[in-house]
Amino acid sequence: MSKKNIILGIFDSGIGGLTVAREIERSIPGVSYVYFGDTARLPYGTKTPGTVVNYALQNSKFLKRHGATVPVIACNTASAAILKTKNADKKISRIFVKTPVFNVIEPAVEAAKAVTRTKRIGVLATPTTVHSKIYERLLKGYIVVSVPAPLLVPLIEAGWEKKAETRSILREYLAPLKKKRVDTVILGCTHYPFIAPLVRDMMGKNVRIVNPAEKTAHYIKRFLGSSAGKKRNRKFFVSDMPEGFVAQAEKFMGRKVQARLASIS
Amino acid sequence: MSKKNIILGIFDSGIGGLTVAREIERSIPGVSYVYFGDTARLPYGTKTPGTVVNYALQNSKFLKRHGATVPVIACNTASAAILKTKNADKKISRIFVKTPVFNVIEPAVEAAKAVTRTKRIGVLATPTTVHSKIYERLLKGYIVVSVPAPLLVPLIEAGWEKKAETRSILREYLAPLKKKRVDTVILGCTHYPFIAPLVRDMMGKNVRIVNPAEKTAHYIKRFLGSSAGKKRNRKFFVSDMPEGFVAQAEKFMGRKVQARLASIS
Repeated sequence: MSKKNIILGIFDSGIGGLTVAREIERSIPGVSYVYFGDTARLPYGTKTPGTVVNYALQNSKFLKRHGATVPVIACNTASAAILKTKNADKKISRIFVKTPVFNVIEPAVEAAKAVTRTKRIGVLATPTTVHSKIYERLLKGYIVVSVPAPLLVPLIEAGWEKKAETRSILREYLAPLKKKRVDTVILGCTHYPFIAPLVRDMMGKNVRIVNPAEKTAHYIKRFLGSSAGKKRNRKFFVSDMPEGFVAQAEKFMGRKVQARLASIS
Repeated sequence: MSKKNIILGIFDSGIGGLTVAREIERSIPGVSYVYFGDTARLPYGTKTPGTVVNYALQNSKFLKRHGATVPVIACNTASAAILKTKNADKKISRIFVKTPVFNVIEPAVEAAKAVTRTKRIGVLATPTTVHSKIYERLLKGYIVVSVPAPLLVPLIEAGWEKKAETRSILREYLAPLKKKRVDTVILGCTHYPFIAPLVRDMMGKNVRIVNPAEKTAHYIKRFLGSSAGKKRNRKFFVSDMPEGFVAQAEKFMGRKVQARLASIS
């Protein structure tokens, strides 16, 4: 495929993927993209891989219709569901016509391999991501301790990151990682960068924290090379826009966001 | 409409409505119904009324296709969205052909009016239900203190009802109700019966707790009179069945449940 006029098609269950879009903008200032947040059906992290793959295919078709040429699955749950489902990545690639399909899991796995010294890696993720066992599969030969953390997304979306209850819940989630003495923790959900300081604090300064958003942005930058366009064009769509949505999205994006409502089904 | 061969069509965003189905079974042992839990798109409580009404119409059509004749909206958020949206209840009624549309809000409001002595009523509910201001509208002349409690559903679904963090989060949600000295609390979400003992404990024994599931069951019993059939028939459908779903559903229903997977969109 030609690398000219590439428009990334970034999708997530909601606004979590904006942490990925934000890193992509930081790494590749000239990049163009269309973002779709499936806020009418979020979260994905407690739903089955079959349902999530189905949503991912619908989201990909939507992004393609809006001009995207290269898909970026900016959601760990959707990445896990697609990586573990036979031919799912091919189906997505086919929607966009011969293109790589970027996800947030493979870059995180590469980064974790590069920084671990003890080969003991912890993963904090949604239930669906953990049950997929995708990290275990991609990290053969490593000791992987993965913990389903269903309460972290609701806590972050409720703006409770600084509260004592969040600290206390996170301490419980991190207990198996501490017990198994991991030296690296993958933040396996796009919401988790907001609690990265807490994780760092609780795990101690010798433990490395892998933020998949940063690593995914580096992967995409390497792929694009010098071809990111000069006339950048960025559009944001969501399938629902509940009370407080804009403030929430701007917190995740770190800048003003103008999102449009779009029906997906 | 004839009251013979009535089959209730009960729906909810997921399994919360099973607390309503359970009360209906208790009150009306001979009742027949079809239940639909929209687990592929849950929760409804953080989505806009427009999106929720759209889902409610799709769910109603699904239930009608499976033989239901009288709709029961066993979800506070969907009840609120339908009550506040012009003609939404008529649209649902039309799907089922001339029938009342039962919801969980009006019975709770009647019960609260009957038990309050000070006319100060507290409502604990999802963000969408609180923003709808439906309780304020139906409780004109009363002081209504309603609190959005987005973390309670995730905590209950994670099985954290007995944990200290849940107590602590609930204490924060109940603070405005205590401050305004309500004498009655409506549990404005079908999940909340699971934390009713905590609410009772924290609010004190002079405060009445209204469980809409019970009141809705009484309404339906009154409507059915002696016409609940003898050949009872009960079916359960859900749009997704994630890991741990059956155990979760049986906890909500208080008995064994055999649910079938059904695609809604």
